[in-house]
Amino acid sequence: MIIVLKPNPDQKQLEALKKWLCEQNLTVHDSLGVNNTVLGLVGDTTAVDTEMLRAMSIVQDVQRVQEPYKCANRKMHQTDTVIDVGGVKIGGGTFQIMAGPCSIESQEQISEIAVAVKAAGASILRGGAFKPRTSPYAFQGLREKGLEMLINASRQAGMPVVTEIMDISQLPYFEDVDVIQVGARNMQNFELLKELGKTDKPILLKRGFSATLTELLMSAEYIMAGGNEKVILCERGIRTFATDTRNTLDLSAIPLLRRMTHLPIIVDPSHGTGIRSLVKPMALASAIIGADGLMVEVHNHPEKAWCDGQQSITPETFADVAKCVRDVLPYRCREEIE
Amino acid sequence: MIIVLKPNPDQKQLEALKKWLCEQNLTVHDSLGVNNTVLGLVGDTTAVDTEMLRAMSIVQDVQRVQEPYKCANRKMHQTDTVIDVGGVKIGGGTFQIMAGPCSIESQEQISEIAVAVKAAGASILRGGAFKPRTSPYAFQGLREKGLEMLINASRQAGMPVVTEIMDISQLPYFEDVDVIQVGARNMQNFELLKELGKTDKPILLKRGFSATLTELLMSAEYIMAGGNEKVILCERGIRTFATDTRNTLDLSAIPLLRRMTHLPIIVDPSHGTGIRSLVKPMALASAIIGADGLMVEVHNHPEKAWCDGQQSITPETFADVAKCVRDVLPYRCREEIE
Amino acid sequence: MIIVLKPNPDQKQLEALKKWLCEQNLTVHDSLGVNNTVLGLVGDTTAVDTEMLRAMSIVQDVQRVQEPYKCANRKMHQTDTVIDVGGVKIGGGTFQIMAGPCSIESQEQISEIAVAVKAAGASILRGGAFKPRTSPYAFQGLREKGLEMLINASRQAGMPVVTEIMDISQLPYFEDVDVIQVGARNMQNFELLKELGKTDKPILLKRGFSATLTELLMSAEYIMAGGNEKVILCERGIRTFATDTRNTLDLSAIPLLRRMTHLPIIVDPSHGTGIRSLVKPMALASAIIGADGLMVEVHNHPEKAWCDGQQSITPETFADVAKCVRDVLPYRCREEIE
Amino acid sequence: MIIVLKPNPDQKQLEALKKWLCEQNLTVHDSLGVNNTVLGLVGDTTAVDTEMLRAMSIVQDVQRVQEPYKCANRKMHQTDTVIDVGGVKIGGGTFQIMAGPCSIESQEQISEIAVAVKAAGASILRGGAFKPRTSPYAFQGLREKGLEMLINASRQAGMPVVTEIMDISQLPYFEDVDVIQVGARNMQNFELLKELGKTDKPILLKRGFSATLTELLMSAEYIMAGGNEKVILCERGIRTFATDTRNTLDLSAIPLLRRMTHLPIIVDPSHGTGIRSLVKPMALASAIIGADGLMVEVHNHPEKAWCDGQQSITPETFADVAKCVRDVLPYRCREEIE
Repeated sequence: MIIVLKPNPDQKQLEALKKWLCEQNLTVHDSLGVNNTVLGLVGDTTAVDTEMLRAMSIVQDVQRVQEPYKCANRKMHQTDTVIDVGGVKIGGGTFQIMAGPCSIESQEQISEIAVAVKAAGASILRGGAFKPRTSPYAFQGLREKGLEMLINASRQAGMPVVTEIMDISQLPYFEDVDVIQVGARNMQNFELLKELGKTDKPILLKRGFSATLTELLMSAEYIMAGGNEKVILCERGIRTFATDTRNTLDLSAIPLLRRMTHLPIIVDPSHGTGIRSLVKPMALASAIIGADGLMVEVHNHPEKAWCDGQQSITPETFADVAKCVRDVLPYRCREEIE
Repeated sequence: MIIVLKPNPDQKQLEALKKWLCEQNLTVHDSLGVNNTVLGLVGDTTAVDTEMLRAMSIVQDVQRVQEPYKCANRKMHQTDTVIDVGGVKIGGGTFQIMAGPCSIESQEQISEIAVAVKAAGASILRGGAFKPRTSPYAFQGLREKGLEMLINASRQAGMPVVTEIMDISQLPYFEDVDVIQVGARNMQNFELLKELGKTDKPILLKRGFSATLTELLMSAEYIMAGGNEKVILCERGIRTFATDTRNTLDLSAIPLLRRMTHLPIIVDPSHGTGIRSLVKPMALASAIIGADGLMVEVHNHPEKAWCDGQQSITPETFADVAKCVRDVLPYRCREEIE
Repeated sequence: MIIVLKPNPDQKQLEALKKWLCEQNLTVHDSLGVNNTVLGLVGDTTAVDTEMLRAMSIVQDVQRVQEPYKCANRKMHQTDTVIDVGGVKIGGGTFQIMAGPCSIESQEQISEIAVAVKAAGASILRGGAFKPRTSPYAFQGLREKGLEMLINASRQAGMPVVTEIMDISQLPYFEDVDVIQVGARNMQNFELLKELGKTDKPILLKRGFSATLTELLMSAEYIMAGGNEKVILCERGIRTFATDTRNTLDLSAIPLLRRMTHLPIIVDPSHGTGIRSLVKPMALASAIIGADGLMVEVHNHPEKAWCDGQQSITPETFADVAKCVRDVLPYRCREEIE
Repeated sequence: MIIVLKPNPDQKQLEALKKWLCEQNLTVHDSLGVNNTVLGLVGDTTAVDTEMLRAMSIVQDVQRVQEPYKCANRKMHQTDTVIDVGGVKIGGGTFQIMAGPCSIESQEQISEIAVAVKAAGASILRGGAFKPRTSPYAFQGLREKGLEMLINASRQAGMPVVTEIMDISQLPYFEDVDVIQVGARNMQNFELLKELGKTDKPILLKRGFSATLTELLMSAEYIMAGGNEKVILCERGIRTFATDTRNTLDLSAIPLLRRMTHLPIIVDPSHGTGIRSLVKPMALASAIIGADGLMVEVHNHPEKAWCDGQQSITPETFADVAKCVRDVLPYRCREEIE
């Protein structure tokens, strides 16, 4: 960490600052310039609060040299983390597709889709039981009953499931769920993250609408610091001025995250664009760019879907997407990133 | 609501769509153009899912004419809502200042600040006990103990308090809290909003980092639809490419919100800028533009603050801000907005 | 075009509006609802100023159904436009790579790079002579002399060139230039666009930092309306809150633009990310997603480049990128987009 | 400037870097840490290209301590710059209002508005002759003829004028223009800025849609480095995800710019919001926050305006705005900013 002091800092305050830094087990190196003094800190600065330093009247700027995340940091864990989800391995060079409807609507619906997406190449079934909807008047999901249907469907089809949790109080219902999803709106629901850190379930953590990559990793760190290292990251689009798509899918995040962390990273092209016809091109781009998998919304009757039908594709289209993705996998860009 | 159909829509699908719309108690008006047919819907469209309509293959676009929020809508409730917080009235032409530290650090600290900000003109004491921090390694607040200190301080100073809740499970601790704050990161924590809708406490709802004004009002609607109409909105800056400030304080939101809703709207210039020296100018601008109040971070020793010291001002500076704000109140822009 | 009127519009103003619309050769269809009247306009609304309509006190909202661009519109010109650049065909299923240094620094430098990128698979040589730099104190390009060196190098290597124009007054120097580039900062330099519309040179038009896709096409329309239909579009990243990369490369723009327009679309992964190690993954993603080509910065000594060295790759790396791109071309997603 | 090196840098490269830095007349201070070496540079780093440094393989990061602008820097010029426009002083504590129509439409129109806005308190007449319009099919301004009408109107009314230039080639027509405006789309039209730097006319430089404050000042620096120090800055809204307003007016830019530069700063609430009813509240907020003036669109018949009528106010409304602004001026926040 580097602290740039303002010109002519008060010497008493400077001594107090240095003393405090030493008490944090940091070694301080001075660099005296003509206008500004620069302090270089050596040691573990993860727990140093840059806000507090910036608040000091003698400090002009503070810059981290080390990343503020440890458990999630590639530097601390060189090899890719591989997460086993009921026999399905995520990370480390595999490519897994999670597919299913936005909302679980009935046993028939989810069971039918489960069979169809498995046949087409999906390895994990997705489906929403607890649904975060912008409007209180919109369908809020079948909740516990939906979870039951999802698990029934998964057993029939023989594939693990991923589904979203919205609040700590719902955790007891997730016992038979294989992967617990934290949605974009909850990426910084820190109490929920801490609680999930105490479980041993794999967690699918979606990037918030306006989260930086470091913030995403700090949220993963909340889960990991609690003891649960099974975190799967998911890029699902960010909010920008560009509104031709619902969100702007930030594909450069994939190679950047692979350099920053050892955790697996998947892409959700359905929410990331909000447009059915963009799912295939963005899925192919995600595969080629080195993602560890996809999450895709599939509905047997997208036009009758209870939510997000506009971005759902049919099982037939999904089969085509999955096949084309498999075709490009041998050409994936997964080499070492400096 | 207006539905623009694609050219030459399939007639069977069109009939099915019209039938379904009629079943929703909506009257459908056709407008036949050369290229596109437009359907105009008359009736209460609040519960109509525009996503579902857009997913239909014959539909090109859907546009709301009515707002999707009812309880919060100015059209349904012409006069300003006034919320009574232990005798302090918020809304309807008053101007209230909430002030206090980012974090409660000790009984002495919060008690000393409480007395100071009250003397300087604050009418409500703020202070964080449960703290949402980006890093799991940063100070997370004194939690229950902090709440106790806050309430002690408020009783000594004789002023009501506002403090943030982070999870439903903390609700029992908030019995003596006067206003419950929902932070920007939780603006779309819908389960929490629903639960708060069942209480009769005033709720201070902060705008999310990347929330539109309609989304903010839909979140207010979650609380109000549950029966709790005491919602105070708070503009606290949005995330943009402009990083000279921590966030970009969107002051045009104030007059826009006043037109859209009858709920009181306050501004947080401390989080909205993240820079101490901007608190005063942005506070004055908020007052003149017609806000119903302010929320300001005040710390007796900003340089030793356990969080967000960079944006905290001293009680002395706060007294100056409060005085200057009072001076401009007679010139406030509160006239009718078309 | 649809005009939503406010409730109970003044009848005189409404009659005046309808009369004016009829004078614009538009047919007006009324749709009377309970709260709002909606006018549907039939005819060519390209020249109707939506701003003027929105300014009327009886108008609540105006929505275009037809796109405001004609020459660039895919609906008016179903087949892909193919642009011939000295025998190199851009568009219609080909894939062309433009490569070369950010700045031309010397005859030796540009000649050496030209030979290297041609050998590696580039079909067009790029190189900056007039350089838009944020600082007036930074190197501004070799200007006319640079253009001469570029053209010399291109003749030696036997490949056409593309280079940026910054002002109309520079046009005389561009006589021997094969493709004239308009940079992101000049995307809405309308006087320059009009002037380029009078030439018969292919124009490479880069998307502005904060331009929507419709704005990009309107700028293409400026050139095309002047008679020059040879416009190549270029996605090069947009400005968002996400600053891990210099810009956020918006790859979803490629399939969206292919649906909106018949013009060829290329991607610049060098400026789009600003990071050397991201050039290859983003180049592969661009190819697979259906772009018509790439523009890549290549420098024989990136560490000594006079500008943008951080995003330049070596000829050796470029050869690897070009090879990998060729490998994935058979799997490109170029099918019909609804 | 601070250069953070990667761990274990190649010693030869490090020596070469240090040698080169010394050749730039910079003194280099080493700070050796456990993981990273940090170089502190002392001297004038304005012309040092941070891009080039970042491109070096041994460099991890580069951070400026000094600002990259000199002429515009408050540190180099402590007192406010005051610009005299035909006797009207801008900057240094005055408050000037520029008002007039978006477009000049006829001699009668501009003359009538000139008289009206002068009577209401405007000191400078604005009016567009060369109009940057997104669509080539929209009205492009009366151009030279419009300029003549503007100057006639200004002489009749006895007030100086400001109007926009779009291209260097138009400069000869601006001989009688008092202030030349550079629009947001041209903020980085560097060739135009350089040419304006050779004139002795005051330049009104509008912030680009997605420009940082440093970029705005670097564009001012282009003009000033050429010898013309008469630059007036103008905040006019930035492009964000928030689309309730046309742009997001960034009022925190005013106190920030006052700290960074000695140049006067005005606000354009008309373009900054795009909504008529927001002009007054944002004008009052701009005045109270410490701006040096306003630019406001006024039209005698906003509903018949040829462009941007939606954001134009009538002379009557303008008179009310100007009066209310005058009322709050005694309470302006113009004190020293740390």
